[in-house]
Amino acid sequence: MTLSMYSASVPVFARMLKNLLAIFEKAEAYAAENGIDLQSFVETRLAADMHPLRNQVQIATDGAKGVPSRLAGKPVPSWPDDEITWADLKVRLQKGIDYLATFSPDDFAGADDRPVTLTLGGKDVEVRGDDYLLNRGLPNFFFHITTAYNILRHKGVPIGKRDYLG
Amino acid sequence: MTLSMYSASVPVFARMLKNLLAIFEKAEAYAAENGIDLQSFVETRLAADMHPLRNQVQIATDGAKGVPSRLAGKPVPSWPDDEITWADLKVRLQKGIDYLATFSPDDFAGADDRPVTLTLGGKDVEVRGDDYLLNRGLPNFFFHITTAYNILRHKGVPIGKRDYLG
Repeated sequence: MTLSMYSASVPVFARMLKNLLAIFEKAEAYAAENGIDLQSFVETRLAADMHPLRNQVQIATDGAKGVPSRLAGKPVPSWPDDEITWADLKVRLQKGIDYLATFSPDDFAGADDRPVTLTLGGKDVEVRGDDYLLNRGLPNFFFHITTAYNILRHKGVPIGKRDYLG
Repeated sequence: MTLSMYSASVPVFARMLKNLLAIFEKAEAYAAENGIDLQSFVETRLAADMHPLRNQVQIATDGAKGVPSRLAGKPVPSWPDDEITWADLKVRLQKGIDYLATFSPDDFAGADDRPVTLTLGGKDVEVRGDDYLLNRGLPNFFFHITTAYNILRHKGVPIGKRDYLG
């Protein structure tokens, strides 16, 4: 009746990033057929004070590198958020997928009760690894993947739930 | 280095439904202050062929009742999707929260390798409980919670990531 901390994080993140990359391919084909500038996708947001697609991809991949790193007790790699173009975002998604592939189940020994320090409202708070994954890491990651999907759907890209779930 | 199938499902679903209900309270206050008809929130969708908020709440709560039920080997309760008003949607969210409270960790003995039958593309497919939770149940649930949030955000409701994460 158990799941490993590895199986509940690394393959889940990798699957969703791959699904989003496949959605990007569909979006690219749709843009080409309809004479849409891909940069307009990159800059679209669902509300004036929400992040555009660019940041959604950056933050989703931040989760995909940060959550497993923290759970495994490894340093979180620093990736400059210097993506500007559609092509840059695809590279960033692939970078997340490639980084996830560097983890093995053994890296997650003791990850469930490993203390993870979060900064919440400007204060450092220590939580257990399992709490971090289930109540911060996964919900936040899925938020940004779904919002990226919703932005492309809002722009007319013909995708559906099957593309999201893979 | 493990999580229980219970802890990775029931409390996660319950927390997110409670967060969405709290977001609904904020949306209601915002609508009152700005003379907005709450029914316009219920009917809003992010794309012409996407589901409006009504269905997002119905499907999110379908996940919250269906996923734990299937993992625990219990019959999935049938809830008619007869919600029409904003108030109906709040009742539906609370119904999901109340149903989740009926589960205990013991209900999930053997849930990780319990076979779950899904209908995918019109065909029945059997998957293991852990695969079902990680690759279908959680991603689909978070999709609908996030899309409900995005719809309200798109309509101007002043909420942020902290409201979503709780």
